Amino acid sequence: MARASDEIEGLIALMARLPGLGPRSARRAVLHLIRKRGQLMAPLAQAMAHVAETVRECPRCGNIATRTLCDICEDPKRATGELCVVEDVADLWAMERGQAFKGRYHVLGGTLSALDAVGPEELRIPTLLQRLADESVREVILALNATVEGQTTAHYIAEEVERAGVAVTSLAQGVPIGGELDYLDDGTISAALRARKAF
Amino acid sequence: MARASDEIEGLIALMARLPGLGPRSARRAVLHLIRKRGQLMAPLAQAMAHVAETVRECPRCGNIATRTLCDICEDPKRATGELCVVEDVADLWAMERGQAFKGRYHVLGGTLSALDAVGPEELRIPTLLQRLADESVREVILALNATVEGQTTAHYIAEEVERAGVAVTSLAQGVPIGGELDYLDDGTISAALRARKAF
Repeated sequence: MARASDEIEGLIALMARLPGLGPRSARRAVLHLIRKRGQLMAPLAQAMAHVAETVRECPRCGNIATRTLCDICEDPKRATGELCVVEDVADLWAMERGQAFKGRYHVLGGTLSALDAVGPEELRIPTLLQRLADESVREVILALNATVEGQTTAHYIAEEVERAGVAVTSLAQGVPIGGELDYLDDGTISAALRARKAF
Repeated sequence: MARASDEIEGLIALMARLPGLGPRSARRAVLHLIRKRGQLMAPLAQAMAHVAETVRECPRCGNIATRTLCDICEDPKRATGELCVVEDVADLWAMERGQAFKGRYHVLGGTLSALDAVGPEELRIPTLLQRLADESVREVILALNATVEGQTTAHYIAEEVERAGVAVTSLAQGVPIGGELDYLDDGTISAALRARKAF
């Protein structure tokens, strides 16, 4: 391997642990950082140190927060009585990109899994049920991944929420926008057919 | 766009300026960093700040250094009288990966370009000629890119070095190891044919 000084090799090794970067692209990224050490590397190091120090979990919803509550929980405009349940923060961000949901979130932190001994207590399910009353939630929208684990978790939560007398819905399944039938899996096509609607 | 808090959005924006990361993968990388803020994010911020502060150009060869001279210039075993001229540090690292060259380097910092008004003074060519005498160099090996600019620069340097009475060589051109003729460009094939050797 190429040998820069130990400090730089150490930095490359750390960068290579980021998703989407390998040893080679980490090397290229570090070289770019070194070339722009004034405009980019120093500010990036500072921003990273600051976030590493201040970032925490929102105690209410599990989103990432830098103050006591996260930005969404603190925004009074988002107290719509609708609660969207997602597996993790990446899913919350994906929902926010859509800009279609104006309510608040609840981040589970994973899915139920008998194999990995993840029960409701390991996820943020008890606090979800607590929030139903605390925030006078009218509707819980399940936005879990369309995987076996996601759907198992969705069924469990749906039962619990219905028992509390709150409406439960979930994201529609069907043909994605711009999707070509020829490239879709059979499961999606049959789900879309079952959920067909008047044109 | 998804909105995390301003600090996190700022960090994502900085990360997205790294080569190989776009806005989306930067977001994913930052999320990964936040999840591993103890083991990865804090050490990475620290390593980055340290390198940003200590890294400089080796005054002798132009390589990246964290002490006065770079590791290669400081290594007495590499004073072999052979000097390898490269365009930039990435090329030096590429040469080092090959582990075939045991001498020292000279990083030009670019190529001659009439259009961009880059003359020999803007590159590290005067210091190269100075080193020929200072370090009793016997051979200069040109490892410039096989582009028009690289080769123009190579010709210029070759003339100057020969005038100083030092031997000049350059990397061989030909079929890359593992290369398939069918996928090679015509220029490479004719260069390989002209430089053919006894089997």
